[in-house]
Amino acid sequence: MPGSSFGESLRLTTFGESHGPAMGAVVDGMPAGIPVALDELQAALDRRRPGRLSATTGRIEGDRAEYLSGIFEGRTLGTPIAVIVRNTDARPSDYDELRTEYRPGHADRSTVLKHGFRDHRGGGRASGRETVGRVIGGYFAQRLLPAACRVTAWIESLGPFRSLPDAERGRYGMRGVDDDRIEAYLAELKASGESVGALIACTIDQPPTGLGEPVFHKLKSDLARAVMSVGAVTAFEYGLGHGFGAEHGSAVTQTESNFGGIEGGISTGERIRFGCVVRPPSTVGEKAKAGRHDPCIAPRVLPVIEAMALLVLADHLLRQAAIDRFQPRPLSP
Amino acid sequence: MPGSSFGESLRLTTFGESHGPAMGAVVDGMPAGIPVALDELQAALDRRRPGRLSATTGRIEGDRAEYLSGIFEGRTLGTPIAVIVRNTDARPSDYDELRTEYRPGHADRSTVLKHGFRDHRGGGRASGRETVGRVIGGYFAQRLLPAACRVTAWIESLGPFRSLPDAERGRYGMRGVDDDRIEAYLAELKASGESVGALIACTIDQPPTGLGEPVFHKLKSDLARAVMSVGAVTAFEYGLGHGFGAEHGSAVTQTESNFGGIEGGISTGERIRFGCVVRPPSTVGEKAKAGRHDPCIAPRVLPVIEAMALLVLADHLLRQAAIDRFQPRPLSP
Amino acid sequence: MPGSSFGESLRLTTFGESHGPAMGAVVDGMPAGIPVALDELQAALDRRRPGRLSATTGRIEGDRAEYLSGIFEGRTLGTPIAVIVRNTDARPSDYDELRTEYRPGHADRSTVLKHGFRDHRGGGRASGRETVGRVIGGYFAQRLLPAACRVTAWIESLGPFRSLPDAERGRYGMRGVDDDRIEAYLAELKASGESVGALIACTIDQPPTGLGEPVFHKLKSDLARAVMSVGAVTAFEYGLGHGFGAEHGSAVTQTESNFGGIEGGISTGERIRFGCVVRPPSTVGEKAKAGRHDPCIAPRVLPVIEAMALLVLADHLLRQAAIDRFQPRPLSP
Amino acid sequence: MPGSSFGESLRLTTFGESHGPAMGAVVDGMPAGIPVALDELQAALDRRRPGRLSATTGRIEGDRAEYLSGIFEGRTLGTPIAVIVRNTDARPSDYDELRTEYRPGHADRSTVLKHGFRDHRGGGRASGRETVGRVIGGYFAQRLLPAACRVTAWIESLGPFRSLPDAERGRYGMRGVDDDRIEAYLAELKASGESVGALIACTIDQPPTGLGEPVFHKLKSDLARAVMSVGAVTAFEYGLGHGFGAEHGSAVTQTESNFGGIEGGISTGERIRFGCVVRPPSTVGEKAKAGRHDPCIAPRVLPVIEAMALLVLADHLLRQAAIDRFQPRPLSP
Repeated sequence: MPGSSFGESLRLTTFGESHGPAMGAVVDGMPAGIPVALDELQAALDRRRPGRLSATTGRIEGDRAEYLSGIFEGRTLGTPIAVIVRNTDARPSDYDELRTEYRPGHADRSTVLKHGFRDHRGGGRASGRETVGRVIGGYFAQRLLPAACRVTAWIESLGPFRSLPDAERGRYGMRGVDDDRIEAYLAELKASGESVGALIACTIDQPPTGLGEPVFHKLKSDLARAVMSVGAVTAFEYGLGHGFGAEHGSAVTQTESNFGGIEGGISTGERIRFGCVVRPPSTVGEKAKAGRHDPCIAPRVLPVIEAMALLVLADHLLRQAAIDRFQPRPLSP
Repeated sequence: MPGSSFGESLRLTTFGESHGPAMGAVVDGMPAGIPVALDELQAALDRRRPGRLSATTGRIEGDRAEYLSGIFEGRTLGTPIAVIVRNTDARPSDYDELRTEYRPGHADRSTVLKHGFRDHRGGGRASGRETVGRVIGGYFAQRLLPAACRVTAWIESLGPFRSLPDAERGRYGMRGVDDDRIEAYLAELKASGESVGALIACTIDQPPTGLGEPVFHKLKSDLARAVMSVGAVTAFEYGLGHGFGAEHGSAVTQTESNFGGIEGGISTGERIRFGCVVRPPSTVGEKAKAGRHDPCIAPRVLPVIEAMALLVLADHLLRQAAIDRFQPRPLSP
Repeated sequence: MPGSSFGESLRLTTFGESHGPAMGAVVDGMPAGIPVALDELQAALDRRRPGRLSATTGRIEGDRAEYLSGIFEGRTLGTPIAVIVRNTDARPSDYDELRTEYRPGHADRSTVLKHGFRDHRGGGRASGRETVGRVIGGYFAQRLLPAACRVTAWIESLGPFRSLPDAERGRYGMRGVDDDRIEAYLAELKASGESVGALIACTIDQPPTGLGEPVFHKLKSDLARAVMSVGAVTAFEYGLGHGFGAEHGSAVTQTESNFGGIEGGISTGERIRFGCVVRPPSTVGEKAKAGRHDPCIAPRVLPVIEAMALLVLADHLLRQAAIDRFQPRPLSP
Repeated sequence: MPGSSFGESLRLTTFGESHGPAMGAVVDGMPAGIPVALDELQAALDRRRPGRLSATTGRIEGDRAEYLSGIFEGRTLGTPIAVIVRNTDARPSDYDELRTEYRPGHADRSTVLKHGFRDHRGGGRASGRETVGRVIGGYFAQRLLPAACRVTAWIESLGPFRSLPDAERGRYGMRGVDDDRIEAYLAELKASGESVGALIACTIDQPPTGLGEPVFHKLKSDLARAVMSVGAVTAFEYGLGHGFGAEHGSAVTQTESNFGGIEGGISTGERIRFGCVVRPPSTVGEKAKAGRHDPCIAPRVLPVIEAMALLVLADHLLRQAAIDRFQPRPLSP
């Protein structure tokens, strides 16, 4: 399967280079008759937009979702849903020097190693801008899931800050940390041409039960792949995760929640919790001061992480729905 | 795609329940004419066998590989390669009490949630025994890769022990740690009905360049899914991994190796390094003392982690081989 | 997707060369709890066995199905079902001359064109013997379909004979034609080193409604691919089929059954009718007299055609089951 | 795999309803650096346009291809190529009566059976307009094939006309038949509210060798599925095809070309020949006189048949390219 499709039963195909005419997404496999609303989709896209937060990249993109197919009278038709977003603010001249230069930590060099040819004007498909398609896919995935199922990502730690459990999520996606302090910190980083990584956490409340398959398509492995496919993510864990490595069995088995809502690769219906790490953007120094670069991408990545989790859940839900039809699960297991 | 197949161009399909007649693997997509040797495959299987190490589960399985198809006169035919391993030591009576009991951290409960029906005699497909098929697949994947490409996993930390860089890998898969000390520690755990987790590291030396695709099938995401699909693995990282979360960009970009041999999701030819965490087995207490259970599964998991990495590399190599044919990569990038 | 897998939601993977140790099939994606019976599967295999009919190839194969996984206490487990059949009657010495000889109409030459290497002892994967795996898959597919849905193939014409509508299907798979007359005709062909083609028809009574997808996976196109993948089949049609080519619209639209139970690629619930052509075996002359070759393969192909249709129906049914769960179809359309 | 994607290594995903905003296609898996030209693509689209021929449907569509991604400086980037075509001439009011009416031979009724919901304004995905996406895909597939490989479809018979072998293909896609006579015949049909079917033939000259896989993905079965997925096609054959059904082996094996350039499912490099049947459009009578309906769709279907064959060849070529890399085929087999 070529690289720009994700999912089996609910399949997202994305396209678009950061400096080409448009980004887009095709969602195939949605059942018919599901109510959808373009303004909700637009709101989801607005959450990942750069320029939304003062310290993030200066590139202002309208990111207006334009619907091309698959929806009729406010409901899905069961046919592929295509949505595009025009690239209105690309300034190719900013990138002329990159024709012969490879940025560390970017796909510049490896794309040439792979293809012998690339669009030097930007990251192409490896740009953060490709996440537009993921957010579009995530919106439709969410429409398929039960209303009670909620996916919520937040920043667990960023530079000197730590989120507080159960606190409200602020504008920057941290819990119980004052937005102004984060903004000031990020502005300072930007001014000094510096960047920083972050830890992200995500919970799935009231997930459908029975999602995941026993061997290669465990729910945890499909979530891992989905989240690790986001550009800057360098680590993934679920449940106790990294903590398990130094733990004894007697301690772990006492609390069921340590298994992160997934047993044998299959969801139990309990809250699923996973985490991931985003590395600091590799553009630093003078270029970082001048250009349109985020000092930390975690705030913008949150809706992307949520979208990927939603896509995994919806894809598995469709498969489980078929199984249920033949062998109804007992009501009280 | 149903859950027991892995890979696109090189596809591994595994089958077999821990207490059924046999485990097996079908490897489809291998080019023809590749030399293979059943004794090498047998040696790979022997590495994952329980009972090989004194402190591990008492179940002694011959695990003799029986070849059924796809090989002729010592070379692959380009047709599906099928290999089975009989289950000779299953003692179903050991498991009678499990007909109505769900073990924590196992798939017992979630399998019923999913299917409404299960084989109570053991883990079924969720048993560690399913990794037999992964090791078979890994052997054939390795035959496809360049001889210079070497995949090596070891235990980075286990209980009180830490591996030493560059030291030799011992019988238990740790580097520079005395095997007798590990054996004594594991025997003690076993005697007290306790278990422990571990950190595993893996390097890929001299990987082919250009492997991985920019968006959903980045090499890092396919490695993550592959490794996280192994039963007890709860976390994955590559390059600096978790370390990136608290790092500044200026520190990270100084050393190229921090990117773990993968840029923009595509291999650069430099050494790839990833790590994962295995949780402590959840069978503890009196049952762990009496039954055939490992106090730590990390030593047996090492060949499985290597097999999964080999499968990902070989699958991507086949895809890249097709691309190369149309657009030869420059010799000196 | 490598070439030996068929289906998306219900996936059949087959393996085995005609002169290797065994043929086999893995069926993945079956829901759990479906009752299955090995003796029914054996009966299905017996129908395709050569040597069953006096005029067919002299090779007597036991073709005893051996179950390896996926079934417990007479019901499916929801895990991959693996079944193998040993090759007991292979006599490689019969084929020594074929090491350097390419038989016309066989895969001998094209396999070398593809792979540069082959098992010269027989057809390898291109042998009619690979249909063992298809029949195994078809059995399990049938278990998934509603009991009322019946797939029936027969020989419409063979040499001088024509089937009679509504007559009983005889031992050779023709309707209303005396078996002894067919047997005498085939024996005569065999004695003279001659072979003959045939027309096959197949009906699907009471198919589930809504199967098929509007564009590339229309039910008619998936049936066509399935049936055309059988070795000797050279043509496929459904509904009026070839007859449509010379027809006027006013004539066609008068009878709904002309559309063959499929409209817009989707089953309507009415009887589906399709047909196919098998070419005469290309082994003729002295070799055909001496060897173990059928003068007409149509009688043995019937259960294979049925199996392929069953696999297509069951695969689409699983997909439609998922859609139904989200958007129940109206009871009276 | 949801229904609007085609191919494994080269994957075409199409979208768009006949009365929605746009039709589109995403082609993923193209190697980088392949020269492409939008005006060539436009010319391919123009061939399938209705209104091009005087007797065909009056609906005039600009069908202007708009490129969105995957191409840079006239060459492919190795990323998904997205092209859309706006629907400029949809007149939904023409279709109001269809909200509650099902046209025979269309997908109207079966779509409701499947989804319980549809866009009543037209055929939706089942409209002939979806072939826009196929023609887009076929153009890029052709760019991947060797220049010497040529795919040519023509009308073998239509109403009272028969093509002459080796004659030139006229405006209506028949060989050696005067275009004016065909035009007059079609105009007469239209005037009387009648329609007619046709037989189509297609040759593939100088195909790459080794394409196709031995069991389920034989070249003939993938061609069959591709061609049968086109809306109005009701039969497929290759080589002698239907003729084989009444033939003796001794007659068939004398001419190699009887096997249609495919042996054992794999291309031999010889000319491949296949045929198909298109049924008469089911809109007849007063509606056919008044509306924008073709009396015979064969002339417009020709580029679609060619596109589907090109997609199958290019998809298999990519797979074979990978195999070649590992086991170069002998130059003189």
